[in-house]
Amino acid sequence: MKRFGQIGKLKPEKKDEYIKLHENVWPEVLKVIEKCNISNYSIYSFELFCFASFEYHGENFEEDMKKMAEDLSVQRWWKYTKPCFEQFKAAGDDEYYIDMKEIFRMD
Amino acid sequence: MKRFGQIGKLKPEKKDEYIKLHENVWPEVLKVIEKCNISNYSIYSFELFCFASFEYHGENFEEDMKKMAEDLSVQRWWKYTKPCFEQFKAAGDDEYYIDMKEIFRMD
Repeated sequence: MKRFGQIGKLKPEKKDEYIKLHENVWPEVLKVIEKCNISNYSIYSFELFCFASFEYHGENFEEDMKKMAEDLSVQRWWKYTKPCFEQFKAAGDDEYYIDMKEIFRMD
Repeated sequence: MKRFGQIGKLKPEKKDEYIKLHENVWPEVLKVIEKCNISNYSIYSFELFCFASFEYHGENFEEDMKKMAEDLSVQRWWKYTKPCFEQFKAAGDDEYYIDMKEIFRMD
């Protein structure tokens, strides 16, 4: 099992919207996340920072992430969520959550 | 089970030291963490940000945190780790990791 930690930064005027959206994540999106072997997924908020942590229980993370990105309901969901983010300087073009380095782990 | 997400910010000149310390967390400190009903503990790093996530499986979090703070090896450990942190404005006097609000959860 691999554990992921990701950081994101919200636009001040979009923070409330992002939180509101996550009160009722669309069931079809949750289903895709599950199918892509992700579980124990939490998102946390502090000031404009968001932090996402989840476990990946599959065999091929890249393949599963590709599957997720190809799903139409996920694409529709991202149309609402992605514009909520500020981009970190270090981020890639379409990267709104950035993978952090795991520096400590205790199971 | 309650899941926690916490954010911290390191001093630029102390980031390497903090990471180095976590390559070999003292066994006596790990033992106390376990005794205090904490598991699946990870710390992540990005730029100067740290993110800690863990699960709490006990009955009384405040009581367990008090137990942890009273342990001498933990107090010694904190003498090394706490000075690595910058304090957020929103943080309390002795608070170097801040609890974030969980805005989404999928098990």
